[in-house]
Amino acid sequence: MSLPIDPPPRLLMGPGPITADPRVLRAMSAQLVGQYDPAMTAYMTETMALYRQVFVTENEHTFLVDGTSRAGIEAALVSLLEPGDRVLVPVFGRFGHLLTEIAERCRAEVHTVEVPWGEVVPAELVEEAVVRVRPKLLATVQGDTSTTMCQPLADLGEICRRHDVLFYCDATASLGGNELPADAWGLDVVTAGLQKCLAGPSGSAPITLSPRAAALIAARRHVEAGIATDDDVPRGARIASNYLDLAQIMEYWGPRRLNHHTEATTMLYGARECARILLEEGLDRAIDRHRRHGEAMLAGVRGLGLQVFGDVAHKMTNVVAVHIPDGVDGDAVRAGLLEDYGLEIGTSFGPLHGRVWRIGTMGYNARTDAVLTTLAVLEQALRAAGVPVTPGAGVGAAREVYA
Amino acid sequence: MSLPIDPPPRLLMGPGPITADPRVLRAMSAQLVGQYDPAMTAYMTETMALYRQVFVTENEHTFLVDGTSRAGIEAALVSLLEPGDRVLVPVFGRFGHLLTEIAERCRAEVHTVEVPWGEVVPAELVEEAVVRVRPKLLATVQGDTSTTMCQPLADLGEICRRHDVLFYCDATASLGGNELPADAWGLDVVTAGLQKCLAGPSGSAPITLSPRAAALIAARRHVEAGIATDDDVPRGARIASNYLDLAQIMEYWGPRRLNHHTEATTMLYGARECARILLEEGLDRAIDRHRRHGEAMLAGVRGLGLQVFGDVAHKMTNVVAVHIPDGVDGDAVRAGLLEDYGLEIGTSFGPLHGRVWRIGTMGYNARTDAVLTTLAVLEQALRAAGVPVTPGAGVGAAREVYA
Repeated sequence: MSLPIDPPPRLLMGPGPITADPRVLRAMSAQLVGQYDPAMTAYMTETMALYRQVFVTENEHTFLVDGTSRAGIEAALVSLLEPGDRVLVPVFGRFGHLLTEIAERCRAEVHTVEVPWGEVVPAELVEEAVVRVRPKLLATVQGDTSTTMCQPLADLGEICRRHDVLFYCDATASLGGNELPADAWGLDVVTAGLQKCLAGPSGSAPITLSPRAAALIAARRHVEAGIATDDDVPRGARIASNYLDLAQIMEYWGPRRLNHHTEATTMLYGARECARILLEEGLDRAIDRHRRHGEAMLAGVRGLGLQVFGDVAHKMTNVVAVHIPDGVDGDAVRAGLLEDYGLEIGTSFGPLHGRVWRIGTMGYNARTDAVLTTLAVLEQALRAAGVPVTPGAGVGAAREVYA
Repeated sequence: MSLPIDPPPRLLMGPGPITADPRVLRAMSAQLVGQYDPAMTAYMTETMALYRQVFVTENEHTFLVDGTSRAGIEAALVSLLEPGDRVLVPVFGRFGHLLTEIAERCRAEVHTVEVPWGEVVPAELVEEAVVRVRPKLLATVQGDTSTTMCQPLADLGEICRRHDVLFYCDATASLGGNELPADAWGLDVVTAGLQKCLAGPSGSAPITLSPRAAALIAARRHVEAGIATDDDVPRGARIASNYLDLAQIMEYWGPRRLNHHTEATTMLYGARECARILLEEGLDRAIDRHRRHGEAMLAGVRGLGLQVFGDVAHKMTNVVAVHIPDGVDGDAVRAGLLEDYGLEIGTSFGPLHGRVWRIGTMGYNARTDAVLTTLAVLEQALRAAGVPVTPGAGVGAAREVYA
């Protein structure tokens, strides 16, 4: 017979998921109410209002998709794209590839602009490709944790407006810890997840849709046979997914409260609390906090003599990648950190697997004690692996940033 | 500023979601560990083993889809069906329509056998249609809460084997409270949810795949560009969804632990605890418990003079539908039950909306005190609505069943 859940204590300083804020877990331990209970519909309405503030948007259609962050990505792409539509994806890491992969499964015609991992895509390159490809949609990641790069978006929004292109952004790894004012930057659709800067568990995907994105999606509205009324005349090309059909999900969250899935109440409690505590702190202060602790960690790993990967000027606030020193077995060091110290850091994917370590400072763990503890432990692990380190140099460099 | 989550106390006696077992909520309040932490992978392996017992199967590929129950349904259909494949769906309520709806979005050729709401589909009708349609897949709901009917499946499995048809069942509303031995009944794929007899919240979809279903799905394996190795040669027609691509999700849960989504850790904790407490009680005992309390509720509502909807011989154990008495505003009564007593019961969809109430006895609420309290309160509400009731007749009839 299996025993009850009793996970070992960990300090999760990888690229996410990270340690959840205990307030989020407490919110998620609350008892359920019915799907159409006034308390439930009020929580849904409040959640929409809270995420409007997190996305810095006036978009009415701001809600949750019930699934992990990639459910949000797929909901956006499958609902925006019709077979044969052209989509342009700037690829600067694994999650750009994921966008192309999902868009291809939507049977879109996918074009990319690629740069080497560790760089971001210059706006001129994007505009040149927009002019050449004439896409319906520009789909980009903001922060690609596989490389730690944070793609500048402000100029891209303007390019999209200029060429009448829809603009989608996957902000899973960046939202709440990096600036992303959706309306000011001309974003039509943004999706996210809870497990990075929002300090919650994976499993719910906040999304916001601009009025023009919502109108485009509503023009493909097909209500299910089992619940459609005579007024629900099918419109446009049916969206290829039912579960991720934003036309129906918009109406589930909207005043009609059209029955669709059964809302994942516990995940909603968690998503609402993630936004609530972020806004209680203040969005700008939370972003500043991520910046400050990210700078401290950056200084700290440099103090330990580690070489930082990629274009530091375009690094996300909340994660840093460092080259694994020559001759060091990176996975063995990570296993030792976990076993001996309960500390988790990450490696990366594809061309960077086993070549870099990724260290996060995000959400609940964008904290001084988490940063200093990580650097103290890392110093011990590097020394044990035979890497020469100046005693106290990592913690010392971080302390200087805090001073 | 929004306040923390603090839902009003409710006794959820509708068709689900129902009140969660407090042990499940406690499991879900546990802190996170990393996605590839040995503790996490052990929890995943244990969860697979537990759900094999819940589904009564030897199927290796038994795991969770990260989403609500309809994510599990869509994962099954989009991964099994290719465009143009024929699928046969017995329709005896709203959730049969949902299967046709999702299969159509997979671009399958969908055929149905329909019976009036309140009946189940005779096996001869299904076999006749199988012979006529020659489908690749028979897709049926087991318990359709919209009508409370429980489709007999044992004969259908034999029909499918005889005609070499794949057999899928949506057991969202029935699993854990009605018999469903997947292997013995020849089921190839079964999906479920937590929010009914499993006593958890919506948001995770257990699934089991027979070896032949798994082989068929694996023959359509396309690993993502960002993480594929040279050995990952694409095979067959790519599955139209990435998020719900069971070929990749099987490998995420399998020994290779191929990176796909970031597992929804908190939902996994909950799903594991749902199975753990069910098996601690014993699957057969849990089904007996649902049967006993379902019979008590059935006797109770009849004792109150209410007329039961549908073919009672084929009723699910865990929910009963009763005709709303003439002249009674069913929605007003339900609102009063919620407001005055914190008690929730349901209505239904489509042709039954406003015509029936649905009362559940499932999961944590398949309990004597919950049944008797519901009947006591319902008596008061009926009397207040002007329906003649014999004082104590509902509770009394239920007590006789318990005696």
